[in-house]
Amino acid sequence: MSDKLIQLVDIPQRGDARGGLAVAELGGALPFPVRRVYWLFGTLPGVSRGFHAHKQLHQLCVCVAGSVRFTLFDGRREENVVLNSSAKGLLIGPGLWREMHDFSSDCILMVFADAEYDEADYIRSKEVFIASTHVA
Amino acid sequence: MSDKLIQLVDIPQRGDARGGLAVAELGGALPFPVRRVYWLFGTLPGVSRGFHAHKQLHQLCVCVAGSVRFTLFDGRREENVVLNSSAKGLLIGPGLWREMHDFSSDCILMVFADAEYDEADYIRSKEVFIASTHVA
Repeated sequence: MSDKLIQLVDIPQRGDARGGLAVAELGGALPFPVRRVYWLFGTLPGVSRGFHAHKQLHQLCVCVAGSVRFTLFDGRREENVVLNSSAKGLLIGPGLWREMHDFSSDCILMVFADAEYDEADYIRSKEVFIASTHVA
Repeated sequence: MSDKLIQLVDIPQRGDARGGLAVAELGGALPFPVRRVYWLFGTLPGVSRGFHAHKQLHQLCVCVAGSVRFTLFDGRREENVVLNSSAKGLLIGPGLWREMHDFSSDCILMVFADAEYDEADYIRSKEVFIASTHVA
C-alpha cells in the first residue's frame, strides 16, 4: 500500500471558448477498465455516506459539480480531502474505509469502478475492517 | 440500423431518503465496456456542439445536470430529443450525425464511449457524411 492514503489523479481539461470540456481517458487518467458507473446527487444537508471498505474493488471518484469531503482510513491513519473540481479524481483501492461528508446541495459525485456491484466485496462493519487490517 | 434514430436507455435510480443514487452498470444500462469517459460543462449560452459523425464509435450520453437538446441525422431523417434526467441515456451508434443545442447554463453532459479518442474515426464534414450514407 502507498504511504499516502489520498491518491489524486489529474484529469485533462480541454477548455475552449465554447465552454468546458473535461476528458478522462482509459490509459490516461482512468487507471482501469470501467465496469460500473454510478453517481450520487441530491444528497440532503447533513447527510454522510459511504461507511464501508472494499476487499478488491478499485474506484475513481470525481466531483463534477459542487463539493464533498472524503475521509479515508486504513485502520491506523485517517486523511481527509475535499473534492470540488472536474480536474481531480480520487483513486480508492482495496482496504480503505471511506466516508463522504459535507455534500454541497449541488454536488454530483461520479464513481467509476473496475467491477460490477458485488455485496460480498463490501466490509460494512468498521470493527471488522480494523481487525482485517491488523491480521495481515 | 434501427428504425428509430433516438435510442433511449433506462438508467436504474436507487433513491433513498439520504439523497439520490443513480446507478448505471455494464451488462445493465451500459451496453458496452467503457474505454473513455468525458463530460461537457460550462457551455456558454447560444453555443452548439457536436457537428460530426463516427465511423465505429458507440456512445452513451447522460445529462446528469441541467438539459441539452440532441439532433440526430442519418442522412435522410432528423430527430430531436431533450435530455434532462439522470434516468435516461441516449445511445448513439456509428453513422449518425449529432448536434447538441440549447445547453442550459448548468448542463453537465457525461459521455461514455467504447473506444479511446481516434481522430480517424470522425467525419466532420456534413457533406461527406451524407455522401457516405448514400453509398452503402
